Amino acid sequence: MNMEFFKCIFCQKKYRLDLFNVFCPECKEPLLYHYPEKKRNFSLNRTNPLEKFLDFLPLSNVNQRLCLGEGDTSLIKLNSIMEKYNLPKIFAKNEISNPTGSFKDRGTIVAIQKAVSIGIKRIGTVSLGSMAASTAAYGARAGLNTFVLVKRDTSLEKLFSTAIHNPVLVKVQGDYGKLFYESFSLGRRHNIYFMNSVDPFRIEGYKVTGFEIFLQLNKQAPRFIFVPLSSGGHLTGLMKAYLNLRQQSFIKQFPTFVGVQAQGCSPIAQAYASGKTKVERIKKPETIAHAISNPDPPGGNIVLKMIRENDGIIIDVSDEDILKTQEELAELEGIFCQPASATTLAGLLKLSKKMKFEPQDKIILVLTGSGLKSIRSLESLKIDIHQTTLPNLIETIASILN
Amino acid sequence: MNMEFFKCIFCQKKYRLDLFNVFCPECKEPLLYHYPEKKRNFSLNRTNPLEKFLDFLPLSNVNQRLCLGEGDTSLIKLNSIMEKYNLPKIFAKNEISNPTGSFKDRGTIVAIQKAVSIGIKRIGTVSLGSMAASTAAYGARAGLNTFVLVKRDTSLEKLFSTAIHNPVLVKVQGDYGKLFYESFSLGRRHNIYFMNSVDPFRIEGYKVTGFEIFLQLNKQAPRFIFVPLSSGGHLTGLMKAYLNLRQQSFIKQFPTFVGVQAQGCSPIAQAYASGKTKVERIKKPETIAHAISNPDPPGGNIVLKMIRENDGIIIDVSDEDILKTQEELAELEGIFCQPASATTLAGLLKLSKKMKFEPQDKIILVLTGSGLKSIRSLESLKIDIHQTTLPNLIETIASILN
Repeated sequence: MNMEFFKCIFCQKKYRLDLFNVFCPECKEPLLYHYPEKKRNFSLNRTNPLEKFLDFLPLSNVNQRLCLGEGDTSLIKLNSIMEKYNLPKIFAKNEISNPTGSFKDRGTIVAIQKAVSIGIKRIGTVSLGSMAASTAAYGARAGLNTFVLVKRDTSLEKLFSTAIHNPVLVKVQGDYGKLFYESFSLGRRHNIYFMNSVDPFRIEGYKVTGFEIFLQLNKQAPRFIFVPLSSGGHLTGLMKAYLNLRQQSFIKQFPTFVGVQAQGCSPIAQAYASGKTKVERIKKPETIAHAISNPDPPGGNIVLKMIRENDGIIIDVSDEDILKTQEELAELEGIFCQPASATTLAGLLKLSKKMKFEPQDKIILVLTGSGLKSIRSLESLKIDIHQTTLPNLIETIASILN
Repeated sequence: MNMEFFKCIFCQKKYRLDLFNVFCPECKEPLLYHYPEKKRNFSLNRTNPLEKFLDFLPLSNVNQRLCLGEGDTSLIKLNSIMEKYNLPKIFAKNEISNPTGSFKDRGTIVAIQKAVSIGIKRIGTVSLGSMAASTAAYGARAGLNTFVLVKRDTSLEKLFSTAIHNPVLVKVQGDYGKLFYESFSLGRRHNIYFMNSVDPFRIEGYKVTGFEIFLQLNKQAPRFIFVPLSSGGHLTGLMKAYLNLRQQSFIKQFPTFVGVQAQGCSPIAQAYASGKTKVERIKKPETIAHAISNPDPPGGNIVLKMIRENDGIIIDVSDEDILKTQEELAELEGIFCQPASATTLAGLLKLSKKMKFEPQDKIILVLTGSGLKSIRSLESLKIDIHQTTLPNLIETIASILN
C-alpha cells in the first residue's frame, strides 16, 4: 500500500494516515480521507458493493470474512406519495435493509476492513443507538475486542441489540459531548481504534450509498437528495460520492443535497439559517427523532462548508411533521422507518411549498433506520381496534364494511 | 392467462384456481399451486428476484409498484462457527434483510401480485407477528383494504409494527386455531382474500429463496438446508424449489431438508418421530421461540409427507439451546436473529452429534426473522456493564484490559 493521507478541508493541510488521530491538530475539525488524483472507475462485474466501488474507497482489497451483506439496498419508487402531493419522481433509498437495520453498517464495514487490514485488534465507539449495535455486530464478526461507551442513564432495553454481540460495555458518568472527544485519548492510550460518527473511513463507506443511487438511476444524478442530519458524517459521505462522480466526469449537474434536522435539535440548521460558519451547541435537545438528536455535532462545520460550496440546503422539521410523515410512509408505501428517517419526507414537503420542481426531477429520500429500532416512539400512535368474538366475526366485518 | 389449477398432494385431484378455496374439499389439506409440465429456465439478466424466477412462479408478469425490495438476500459464510465446531461449510441465508425483517415478505409479495392481477380489493391474514406486519405493509403499498385478525389478548406493543400501516385490526375472542379456518368463510362471504400461513401463493414465494441459494452456490444444491418449522408453509416452499430444480435437471442430488421445531411446541417433530402421517394438536405450547409456536400447524401433514418422500428430517431443540445459539450467532458472527431462527443452528449442532458430515458438504441455515422483532426475549440476557466516570475512564479501561 502506498502512503495514505488525511486532509483538513479547512486549512487544506495533509497529514499522514493515523487511525488514532482523526482531527486536524490546528483547526480541531475532523479530517477526511485524501485521494491522489487519478482516473477511477467502477467494477460493475462485482456483486459485493465494496468491490464494485473499490477504486473510490480507501481499501486495497475486500476481506469477505468481515462482510455481513451490507449495501446493495433497494431504491423504492414512492408512487402513492408522488400522486398525493403532485410531486415528480420520488425514490426511497432503503438503508433499513442493511444487516443491523441502519445506514451505519455502510460506514462500519469500511472502518473494520481498514482496521483489520493494518492489524488493529481493539475497536470502540461512543454511541447510544444504531452505531453501537452496528459496531458491536461487525466487531464480533471480525473477532475484535470491541468497546462500547454509553451514557450513565442508558436503559438496559436500549442496549439489548448491542449487548447480544457481547462487546465490552461501559457506562460513563459525565458530559456526553466530552466523552466523544475523550474516547480518542483513551484510544491512543490503549490502542483502541474509536470509529465514532465522523470517522474518516465511516464517511468513505457512506459514499457507496451515493454511488449505488447513481447506478440505480441508470448513471444519472438525482436532482435532490434528502438526508437526515445529525453528526454530519452521513451527509458528508454522500456529498463526497457526488464530488467524486463529478471529478471523474460521470456527472455534470451536482445534486442539491438537503440535510434535514429535527426542530428540537437543529444546531446545524440554525447556523445555516443565520449565515454562521460555526455550529453552536444546543442546550436542551428535545425531539422524537432520537437517532438524529445530536446537540453538538462534530461534523457540523464540515457540513456547513460543503453544503454552502455545493449549493445545498439545510432545513428543520417539527416533531409533528416527523410523526405524520412516518405514518404516511407506512400507510401509503408500506415502509416502516424510524422517525429520524421520516424527516426526509417532512423536509421535502416543507421545501415543496416554497420551491417548484420540474416534472423530470428525481428526488431521493435516504431512509436511514428501521422503525423496529424505535418502537417506543409509537406509544402515542392512535390505534383503532375492533373487538369481536368468533361467532360474531362475520357480522362484525360486515358492519365495518358498511 | 391460461387456466390455472391447485392440486391436493394427498388425493392428487386438481381444482380450478380460486383464491377463496385453498383447501382440498375431500382431504381438507392445503392445496398447492399446480404447474403444467414444460421446460423452464431462469432469467438471469433481470435484477428483480420475481422476474428472475418468473418462469417458476404463478405470475405472468411482475408489477413493480407492489414491490418493496424483497429478496436477493445475502448468503453469509459462518467461518467462526465452522471453526468452533469443526464443521464443513455453513452459510446463513439472511432473510432478516427483507423489507419488514422476515421471510414472510417472500410469500406476501407473490400473493399480493396475484391478488392485484385479478382485481382483488380486500386482503387479510390471521397472525400474531411477522405475517401480520408483512401483510399490512404490502397491503398498504398496494392500496388494498387489509384485514388483520388477532387474538383477544394480544398486547398493543406487539401490534405497533402492523398498526403503523393502518390496516383494519380486529381482536377476536375465541379459539385461535378455529379462527384460522373461520377466516376463509369470512373471506368468501366478504370477498376478502385471506393470505394465511399455508396460502398456495405464499408457498410459491418461498421457492425464490431456494432458487437464490442454488445460484449463490454457483448452481449447486447444498447438502443440507435447515429451516425453522411452524405452520409448514416455508419448508414446503423451499422443498418445492428443489423439486422444480430436479425436475428441470438443474440438480441431481436433492438436498436433505431439516425442519426444526422448538421442543415446547413440536407437533410435527413428534408425529415424525413416532411414524405418524397426521400431526396431532399440542395442548400447551410453551417456548421462547414464539414465531414458530404453532400448536396446530395447518401444513403439518404436507410437511410430513414431503419430508418422508424426500429423505428429509424433522427434529426439535430445547429453549436452552435456542438461546445459546442465538447468542452464538450474535457473538461469533455478528448476526442478531430471532430465537426461532436460531433453531437452525441448534438443530445443526444437535444433528452433528449423530451424523458425520463430509468436508465438501455445504450447509444452509435459513435465518427467518430479525432479533429486533423479539427484543423482549432478551430480558434474561446476562449483560455485564462496567460503570465509571469521565475522569476515571482511562483507568477503568486499563483495569478491564488487565
